Amino acid sequence: QASIINEALSSLCSPALVLDVDKVKINAQRMIDRCDKLGVQLRPHMKTHKTLECADIMTAESRRCIVVSTLAEACFYADHGFDDILYAYCLPFDKVERCAALSERLDLFQVLLDHPDALEQLKKRPLRDGRLWHSEGVELTGVYAHCGNSYHCRGLEQIQAVAQETTKLTLQFMEKLKAAGVTCKSSIGSTPSCSHPVRDMAQLSEVHPGNYAFYDAQQSVIGSCSIEDVAVRVLTRVIGHSPHRNQLLIDCGWSGISQEGVGKLPTGCAVIEGHPHLKLVYLTQEHGIVEPTSGLLDYSKYPLGSLLRLIPYHACATTMMHSVYHIYSKGRLVGKWTPTRGW
Amino acid sequence: QASIINEALSSLCSPALVLDVDKVKINAQRMIDRCDKLGVQLRPHMKTHKTLECADIMTAESRRCIVVSTLAEACFYADHGFDDILYAYCLPFDKVERCAALSERLDLFQVLLDHPDALEQLKKRPLRDGRLWHSEGVELTGVYAHCGNSYHCRGLEQIQAVAQETTKLTLQFMEKLKAAGVTCKSSIGSTPSCSHPVRDMAQLSEVHPGNYAFYDAQQSVIGSCSIEDVAVRVLTRVIGHSPHRNQLLIDCGWSGISQEGVGKLPTGCAVIEGHPHLKLVYLTQEHGIVEPTSGLLDYSKYPLGSLLRLIPYHACATTMMHSVYHIYSKGRLVGKWTPTRGW
Repeated sequence: QASIINEALSSLCSPALVLDVDKVKINAQRMIDRCDKLGVQLRPHMKTHKTLECADIMTAESRRCIVVSTLAEACFYADHGFDDILYAYCLPFDKVERCAALSERLDLFQVLLDHPDALEQLKKRPLRDGRLWHSEGVELTGVYAHCGNSYHCRGLEQIQAVAQETTKLTLQFMEKLKAAGVTCKSSIGSTPSCSHPVRDMAQLSEVHPGNYAFYDAQQSVIGSCSIEDVAVRVLTRVIGHSPHRNQLLIDCGWSGISQEGVGKLPTGCAVIEGHPHLKLVYLTQEHGIVEPTSGLLDYSKYPLGSLLRLIPYHACATTMMHSVYHIYSKGRLVGKWTPTRGW
Repeated sequence: QASIINEALSSLCSPALVLDVDKVKINAQRMIDRCDKLGVQLRPHMKTHKTLECADIMTAESRRCIVVSTLAEACFYADHGFDDILYAYCLPFDKVERCAALSERLDLFQVLLDHPDALEQLKKRPLRDGRLWHSEGVELTGVYAHCGNSYHCRGLEQIQAVAQETTKLTLQFMEKLKAAGVTCKSSIGSTPSCSHPVRDMAQLSEVHPGNYAFYDAQQSVIGSCSIEDVAVRVLTRVIGHSPHRNQLLIDCGWSGISQEGVGKLPTGCAVIEGHPHLKLVYLTQEHGIVEPTSGLLDYSKYPLGSLLRLIPYHACATTMMHSVYHIYSKGRLVGKWTPTRGW
């Protein structure tokens, strides 16, 4: 397995972000099936990858019903035929005009509000065709919660306790709204809770996880997935031997994997696939320092130029460091995906 | 001063990386003057900014004699008429052909070697026009040292002690080479040591600092510069009030400033310019959480939508998160710089 992957990837200069597209498809389909079974609408989040290709996989090519974290993503997807886009960010006052323009272009564009001042901002910019925040004011589409506390969980039981608590609180809030004469949708998110949903989540309208298409070492530590489910790697090469320090130097620093993993894993900033006895102990801009977890390094196993594959701690942070993702399937490179960037 | 800057920048959507180009020019000119006075060749490093415009400022428009951290930078600068480029990276075996191609295009392209195997790699790819590593083998151009330990210094005295030690060791090594019949150049680097050079550095051939064009909060903590010398900011806006937590929410997370500052400054991940009583305590992908250093926040001073300017801990890490830099001068936006990315 490892030698087949390395053969496929050996033509790439490193560091390079590589994706096993078959794993991406399996992860995406599992989430689709899970939501179908639960009877809840899946609204996948794009922030981990920010590409058209992965959005197509996550929406089963419908190009409808997505969440984004930046307005740049919203515009990128709108420009490419996506619609029903939720901008999961409390309305930024500097971007009201751009939000209004998107609303006028799309069938459905949703923003989050968490303050009365934001409502005033919306009302000051009525839409030309009367959609969404029309002459009568603003249309409340739904209630959105993230359950970020699921990231502190370890294992199924804790994840499901958070999923249950978030669902319960959200449904209680929906009841209060209903008592006040307001009916609208409800949506909760997070990859951990949606990877192990509880039955009550069927009473929600939508869920909005995102990281699950790639997963990462963090999600495997939480218990959302197994390490084998992780679809993303940073390909790196051994570029130095430091026997006086019992260390290897690799050509991936924080510019290639991000500082997000530092101090978070027993193996340092990443899991080094197929080498459980190696730790990535330190990162500079363009270098990584690798040590054995114990004992002396056998340098003959790691000649200069040899390939290693890093499983990142946090896929969302690692992908941000790359302007192209290299896609492989069954031992072959099959293409490149180009993410959008900025705000 | 602050209100003039904010007026210039208020048209930008945030987060945005902004540069005071007058400070960049002053910082660059000071380093040129310092090296002139010392009688040592300045070879500025491009890794902090990776733009043509800043390279022109740092080379006084000569477009000669630069250092880069990636081969993508080397190619970018070569494509735009720069020459005498030092690729300050131990020859990566996957990039020998690309290095050879650059050597054949340029008058002078230099790589680092730190292992006999790397020499073998060079010899296997003789250059077509016989330059650099010609028929007789490889030409040793010089000895390169970084003195990264200067980043642990606090204050002038410690910086100059490291500069002195590095210079002494490098010059002793040059003597040994000379005794063995080898004469070549010598170069040391780091922004701290070159911001406060010692007299013996005049005996070196070159110095290769880079961060000094922008400086950052880290360099001001080290003592390389004052906080007023720092040319780079991340423009951000207040997007939320959390009085129950005595916190503000801003629209800059680690995707806008990097995780590099986390836990490094008394004010958190950055210095918030003009607000010494505020700390940036936590970052998510697209949000920053701000607290007062003590007491209760006066929210009337920070209405939703109001601007804050973050002085980043590490400019090299923060610039990497942005695909465009906005340039201002004397209260006006005057242009955009576009960095190169990748490897």
